[in-house]
Amino acid sequence: MIIVMKPGATREQIETVSERLVEMGFKTHPIYGQEKTVIGAIGDKKALSSEALINLPGVEKIVPIMKPYKLVSRELKDTPTIVRLGGVPVGGRGLVVMAGPCAVESEEQLMAAARAVKAAGAQVLRGGAFKPRTSPYAFQGLEEEGLKMLARVREETGMPFVTEAVDTRDVPLVAEYADAIQIGARNMQNFRLLQEAGATGKPILLKRGLAATIEEWLMAAEYILDSGNPNVILCERGIRTFETATRFTLDLAAVAVVKENSHLPVIVDPSHSTGSWRLVLPMARAAVAAGADGLIIDRSSTVLRHMPGPRSSNIKAFRA
Amino acid sequence: MIIVMKPGATREQIETVSERLVEMGFKTHPIYGQEKTVIGAIGDKKALSSEALINLPGVEKIVPIMKPYKLVSRELKDTPTIVRLGGVPVGGRGLVVMAGPCAVESEEQLMAAARAVKAAGAQVLRGGAFKPRTSPYAFQGLEEEGLKMLARVREETGMPFVTEAVDTRDVPLVAEYADAIQIGARNMQNFRLLQEAGATGKPILLKRGLAATIEEWLMAAEYILDSGNPNVILCERGIRTFETATRFTLDLAAVAVVKENSHLPVIVDPSHSTGSWRLVLPMARAAVAAGADGLIIDRSSTVLRHMPGPRSSNIKAFRA
Amino acid sequence: MIIVMKPGATREQIETVSERLVEMGFKTHPIYGQEKTVIGAIGDKKALSSEALINLPGVEKIVPIMKPYKLVSRELKDTPTIVRLGGVPVGGRGLVVMAGPCAVESEEQLMAAARAVKAAGAQVLRGGAFKPRTSPYAFQGLEEEGLKMLARVREETGMPFVTEAVDTRDVPLVAEYADAIQIGARNMQNFRLLQEAGATGKPILLKRGLAATIEEWLMAAEYILDSGNPNVILCERGIRTFETATRFTLDLAAVAVVKENSHLPVIVDPSHSTGSWRLVLPMARAAVAAGADGLIIDRSSTVLRHMPGPRSSNIKAFRA
Amino acid sequence: MIIVMKPGATREQIETVSERLVEMGFKTHPIYGQEKTVIGAIGDKKALSSEALINLPGVEKIVPIMKPYKLVSRELKDTPTIVRLGGVPVGGRGLVVMAGPCAVESEEQLMAAARAVKAAGAQVLRGGAFKPRTSPYAFQGLEEEGLKMLARVREETGMPFVTEAVDTRDVPLVAEYADAIQIGARNMQNFRLLQEAGATGKPILLKRGLAATIEEWLMAAEYILDSGNPNVILCERGIRTFETATRFTLDLAAVAVVKENSHLPVIVDPSHSTGSWRLVLPMARAAVAAGADGLIIDRSSTVLRHMPGPRSSNIKAFRA
Repeated sequence: MIIVMKPGATREQIETVSERLVEMGFKTHPIYGQEKTVIGAIGDKKALSSEALINLPGVEKIVPIMKPYKLVSRELKDTPTIVRLGGVPVGGRGLVVMAGPCAVESEEQLMAAARAVKAAGAQVLRGGAFKPRTSPYAFQGLEEEGLKMLARVREETGMPFVTEAVDTRDVPLVAEYADAIQIGARNMQNFRLLQEAGATGKPILLKRGLAATIEEWLMAAEYILDSGNPNVILCERGIRTFETATRFTLDLAAVAVVKENSHLPVIVDPSHSTGSWRLVLPMARAAVAAGADGLIIDRSSTVLRHMPGPRSSNIKAFRA
Repeated sequence: MIIVMKPGATREQIETVSERLVEMGFKTHPIYGQEKTVIGAIGDKKALSSEALINLPGVEKIVPIMKPYKLVSRELKDTPTIVRLGGVPVGGRGLVVMAGPCAVESEEQLMAAARAVKAAGAQVLRGGAFKPRTSPYAFQGLEEEGLKMLARVREETGMPFVTEAVDTRDVPLVAEYADAIQIGARNMQNFRLLQEAGATGKPILLKRGLAATIEEWLMAAEYILDSGNPNVILCERGIRTFETATRFTLDLAAVAVVKENSHLPVIVDPSHSTGSWRLVLPMARAAVAAGADGLIIDRSSTVLRHMPGPRSSNIKAFRA
Repeated sequence: MIIVMKPGATREQIETVSERLVEMGFKTHPIYGQEKTVIGAIGDKKALSSEALINLPGVEKIVPIMKPYKLVSRELKDTPTIVRLGGVPVGGRGLVVMAGPCAVESEEQLMAAARAVKAAGAQVLRGGAFKPRTSPYAFQGLEEEGLKMLARVREETGMPFVTEAVDTRDVPLVAEYADAIQIGARNMQNFRLLQEAGATGKPILLKRGLAATIEEWLMAAEYILDSGNPNVILCERGIRTFETATRFTLDLAAVAVVKENSHLPVIVDPSHSTGSWRLVLPMARAAVAAGADGLIIDRSSTVLRHMPGPRSSNIKAFRA
Repeated sequence: MIIVMKPGATREQIETVSERLVEMGFKTHPIYGQEKTVIGAIGDKKALSSEALINLPGVEKIVPIMKPYKLVSRELKDTPTIVRLGGVPVGGRGLVVMAGPCAVESEEQLMAAARAVKAAGAQVLRGGAFKPRTSPYAFQGLEEEGLKMLARVREETGMPFVTEAVDTRDVPLVAEYADAIQIGARNMQNFRLLQEAGATGKPILLKRGLAATIEEWLMAAEYILDSGNPNVILCERGIRTFETATRFTLDLAAVAVVKENSHLPVIVDPSHSTGSWRLVLPMARAAVAAGADGLIIDRSSTVLRHMPGPRSSNIKAFRA
């Protein structure tokens, strides 16, 4: 960590900061520049609140040097983590495709969707039993009934499933049925939920928040690994920007940045991000080309009806 | 709602969309433009998922006409809502100032802070007992112990307090002690939490999400009002943008937009947004000038030490 | 265009708006909803300033129905435009790679870079003679000397080149030497520059602005086509967002959106956007998979030194 | 400047970087941390392209310590700069109001607007003779005719005027008539334009770019001061964000940040930023409370018609 002092900071102010750092267990290395002094602080700042330092007189800014995450980092483990979702390995050499309807509406709808996506090449089923609708007037999900339907469809098709838990109190129930628990974008920093879900030991599909930096996303994953569960699959699903032609801006460079910094597998959602089924195929291809370990696709009944040609050709096209 | 058809949409496609709208209970009014056809749809679309329509062949886009919220809207209630927090009215003619430490660390620290902010003119104490730290390695909060300290300080000073509930399971405990429950920015769309907190009947301080649109913010408030609790105080605390000179970008126009569209009181947090105590005073003044009903200020112990001059002059300066 | 009236707008206000629309040459179609009235306006609004309408009493908002661009639109020309840059076709079936140093520093440096990128498979050379440095203290470019070097290198290698014009007064000079003129991101809405560059008839490489919507980008291209020059190549180079792990956020969905709406060719800059040469290869692959017609890569001398392996394998890898 | 080496960087890589720094004229101070090494570099990096260093093997990132601007900085001149616009001092104790129509359409319209804004308390007239319309189909401005009208109105009313120059070739003409030259948001990084306009010696009204950081904005001002013209007035006019309820997000904290870092005067445009005349008054008040030295308001003829009450009360209200 580097503490940058303001120009004109007094010797006394510099010493006060150094003393505070030493109290906190750091070794200090001041460098006296032409106009500013900076203090290098070496030590383990896990528990540090930089706010304790930023407001000291004379301090201009604090520059972190170490990344705040450890367990997810390649610096700790340089071999890729392979998460087994049901029997399906995520993060190894193959491409994993997870698909299914956004919300489970009925068993017929779910079974039809599952058969269609399986024929298209998907290995994992997705479907929402608990929906985080943004309006109190919209469908909340079938809840336990939905989980039972997903389980019955799993028996029929052999496809493991991932489904979202939106609240800590639902986690035990979801964990009872699901092969993997999804943490939605709006819950990425719901730390209690991350801990509860992590504690089940189940694979966790962690969606990046709408406006989460990659660092915050990896810190959310760190939270889960820190509670003893190494089975985290990251999912890039677009970030919020000024552009309105797409619902969100799919940040494929984030896939490459994650691969560079972390050993965790990372998949991409090309459907919820773009908001338009005509953009799903090019973005799915681009995600695979960028190095993603898989895709998760919302195959709502309407989308299913309008995707051109035999489904299998679509999925196979992804792997080109 | 207006459905815009693509140029070259066939008569058949237009009819299919009209039929679907009629099935959903809308009255339809097609307008045949020179290059495109649009269909006006009149009806109550509360339960509509526009996704059901957007993927129909020939549909280019759907333009909502009605605002999605009703209960929070001035169109329903054009007189300002005054929320009573402890005995303190928020939303009336006066300016309410809520201040206190970000986290409750000890009773001495809390008592000292409370006395200082009270002397400075604050009417409501804030303090975190449950902290949503973004790192598993940081302090999580004193939890029930912290709530008890806040209650004891309330007795001593007469100041009601607002504190954050981060998880649905903590809501009953927090409601037992607190005069108002804060929903943090990262939980603004944690709908289960909004419902639980709303169900207590306590005043809810609803912070705008980091990247929430004003509409999403008002819809979150709608969620709470819809569960029967009218006592919502909105809080603008800055949004995430590309600018890095401040931690977030304080969006004071949002105060004016909210005032225009909703009867709910709205306060501003000039401290967490800017991230720098040197910007707190100008932003606090600007917030008041923009029409905010109050301010909520993080008065961490360090900030307290470095705010210049007698505290009371700061608060009184805000009301200039 | 749809004019949405506020709830409670009076009959008189609605009539005033209708009259104004008729004066402007529109046909009007009012639809009386349960709570709001909307007025469909059919006509050619090319010259309309919506500001003339938005401030009329009772008007809540104006919703555009027609896209503001015509010449660049697929609705006008549904076959892909192929721009010939030197002899190189951009927009047809192949993939075009443009590469070279950010700034031309010397003839040796330029020749070495040109040979290296040519060996790697690039067909077009890029190099800056006029640099829009963001600091008055940085190198401004070799200007005409730089153009001459680019021309000599073209003779030697057979590679046509694209170079940036930063000011209207330099356009004639640049057009004298260059095969194509680049309009930089910061100049995307420098309309005088677009007109001057367009008027040369040379192919124009139009970089998307840092915070330009896709619509604004296409409107900038419209400006050029409107001055009679159909030879526009769009270039996605990343947009400004809150994420700091990359210099800009490469918006590959924009490639697909452009392809859907326009007949113009679109290439991607995976180097300036990411700001890190380790991300260039994955992003280049992703761009090609997303449907880009080509790539433009900053091959500064340092990058050249550190790209692994024979250059040709890198470029060929892009086409995988 | 601090160069942060990657964990595991070899001694050889560290030495290579140090040698390069010494070649560039820096003094180096390595600090060997537990996991990473950082190198403090002391020297004058005015001409440095950090790209020369960032790509060296082993380098993780470069952290700037010194601000890149000098002439605009309070560190150079700690007393406020007062720019005289016509006879009107901007940056001193008073509040300056500049108002007028967005585009000069006719002399009657301009004279009426000038009289109205003068009666309302404005001291400076604004009006566009050269308009940077974003569409080739919209009105481009009356150009020299418009400048003449502004000059005649100045004679009549005594109000000096500011008007935009959109192209380097128009600068001499604009400078002939105008009291101050405005650089529009989309031209903030048009460095040739900044230089030409700066070279006239006239006061320059520099609007912040749509997505310009405060640092980039101050560097644009630095460009002008570096060409010998100290008369720069900064203008905050809103930045581009995800929020769509306002045209741009007015960043009033930027006013305070500028005041903290620079001696230049800064005014605010509450009209173009919000895009809605109902938000102009609260934002104007907030801007003044935030410490702005003035306001610039688009008083188009329609807005003029619909602003409530006697104009003078509006302006005086701003000063409350």
